[in-house]
Amino acid sequence: MAAEQRKVALTGIKPTGEPHLGNYIGAIRPSLELTSTYESIYFIADYHALTSIRDRVELATYTRSVAATWIALGLDPARTIFYRQSDVPEIFELSWVLSCVTAKGLMNRAHAYKAARDRNAESGATDLDAGVNMGLFNYPILMAVDILIMNTDVVPVGQDQTQHVEYAADIAGTFNHLYGDSFSLTVPKGIYPAGVSAKALPGVDGRKMSKSYRNTIPLFAPEKQLRKLVRGIVSDSTPVEGPKDPDTSAAFALYENFATPEEVKDMRARLEQGGTGWGELKNALFEAVSSWLSPLRERYDELVAPGSELDVILATGAEQARDRARPVLTGVRRAIGIATS
Amino acid sequence: MAAEQRKVALTGIKPTGEPHLGNYIGAIRPSLELTSTYESIYFIADYHALTSIRDRVELATYTRSVAATWIALGLDPARTIFYRQSDVPEIFELSWVLSCVTAKGLMNRAHAYKAARDRNAESGATDLDAGVNMGLFNYPILMAVDILIMNTDVVPVGQDQTQHVEYAADIAGTFNHLYGDSFSLTVPKGIYPAGVSAKALPGVDGRKMSKSYRNTIPLFAPEKQLRKLVRGIVSDSTPVEGPKDPDTSAAFALYENFATPEEVKDMRARLEQGGTGWGELKNALFEAVSSWLSPLRERYDELVAPGSELDVILATGAEQARDRARPVLTGVRRAIGIATS
Repeated sequence: MAAEQRKVALTGIKPTGEPHLGNYIGAIRPSLELTSTYESIYFIADYHALTSIRDRVELATYTRSVAATWIALGLDPARTIFYRQSDVPEIFELSWVLSCVTAKGLMNRAHAYKAARDRNAESGATDLDAGVNMGLFNYPILMAVDILIMNTDVVPVGQDQTQHVEYAADIAGTFNHLYGDSFSLTVPKGIYPAGVSAKALPGVDGRKMSKSYRNTIPLFAPEKQLRKLVRGIVSDSTPVEGPKDPDTSAAFALYENFATPEEVKDMRARLEQGGTGWGELKNALFEAVSSWLSPLRERYDELVAPGSELDVILATGAEQARDRARPVLTGVRRAIGIATS
Repeated sequence: MAAEQRKVALTGIKPTGEPHLGNYIGAIRPSLELTSTYESIYFIADYHALTSIRDRVELATYTRSVAATWIALGLDPARTIFYRQSDVPEIFELSWVLSCVTAKGLMNRAHAYKAARDRNAESGATDLDAGVNMGLFNYPILMAVDILIMNTDVVPVGQDQTQHVEYAADIAGTFNHLYGDSFSLTVPKGIYPAGVSAKALPGVDGRKMSKSYRNTIPLFAPEKQLRKLVRGIVSDSTPVEGPKDPDTSAAFALYENFATPEEVKDMRARLEQGGTGWGELKNALFEAVSSWLSPLRERYDELVAPGSELDVILATGAEQARDRARPVLTGVRRAIGIATS
């Protein structure tokens, strides 16, 4: 009974690249911590990724590796619902329904679409819609449906994602205004978990770790590649003997997230004092990351293999997700006057 | 074998009003004549109607009466596939996929959307998208999917509907260009059946018979209402004795479509000669329409009743339609890299 009354939190995961350390610190860890407070639902938004990925192998590979990553890092399929968006056809039917109650003006003002137009304007394109596909333009509706069809109460978001939840709430409100005498959609709220909006983790070039900067350290890269990437993190040319400012160092920022507080305190003192080189810091960083990841890598490798337990987990998740989605779609169909058998 | 090789023709029927005599002459009859040449598929586009209908009873009622009308008028469910769009969830999933390969620019140029903007411009609205919902804006994609998911070869269209098929062909072409090494969509063609583009049937006020003019004569209105509507058709004030020009008469234009060639020839002579009043013409028109409709009305009334054979027909049609749609969606999913179980 107590579990039933917990609020439902939904997290969508877009499989557009190999998950990296920045994803872990900025999104995966804070999101997984919510499972102690909320009834948590997670899904791989593979059909969202289709707005930008045209390579079938890439889409399939990222979908699988992202799913395996979250489970290896602690997502417990026994305590959550975990599914692929593409396994829940109800989502796409509800998308059509809600597009019919959504003003086009709302989409015109969506951040992702406006950013695409701005890029076109900057590059001097005469057609501001150049390169914009209807998947990108419709994206906020599909995102709203992902949320609404699961009867979601809260959606953990970073500051730049608040619009998604506002749009979902807006669209639910319009539907409820028109058809609420028969069936109501749950109006969701955004929440801002600690960590999600924290200082961004730097990549190997010192800028924010991001796939688009090609400066990431993948979570489950082979050890050899991990070592090479860590050794390649930018550092200044202070000699080993010289005192150093840890707070200007990308490697130290990473170390702070993966070493124990004692190790971090000790390393800070040694760097400031001089006599400890950046190379030594990077070795320590590699050890910290590697010893944390080693046991998880085993689980990841098991799951990511074709025909693994992951298929069973996702199939079970799909059933649970559809069990939640069906009554919402049925309620909506009745409300709008579409026959239900 | 011969039947297998016939080309497939698809007709969509939007349930936005009670079917009237103008629908019969301009669309239903010419479309039903195609079944002798093509493997014919018909569907009730109930989810299309949702872009404009907000009343659940209206949507459900029109859907049922339109389906009953086509069968009463000769659609043979044993020789065709006949289903409701809302019974084929595969359509909505494919809609998302194809929206991701459709340029927004294509939608910007769609006739229905441009017409809505023109109306806003004419009324002095500052926001040209005012009152435009995303269902209306996405409409051409859903229409393309209706066509493509059935592996349609040809779509019978009126002159003002050619864009729908062009868009479907265009979207299929883009998909095939991107993913055709793995799976190809059938590229459809428009055909212009005799009758569809013929002179429009006039309504009771002499303008084209159209729901939007509120000048229609419903096919299965009660006899009493039918008589009243026919008696109310506009006519000029030439007295009974005076010679008349049949070609200026809305009632005569209708009579030409529902009486035998002999009756029409005879009536024309009598009107031109004088001594036959418009009232007499209207009585003859009522008799012609009524005697044609009477036996059909019985079948219509049977079908339109709740729980009738119509439910079985539509359920069977839905299964047949999904059997056609599933392999297309599966081929598409494999081609884009979405897992198929």
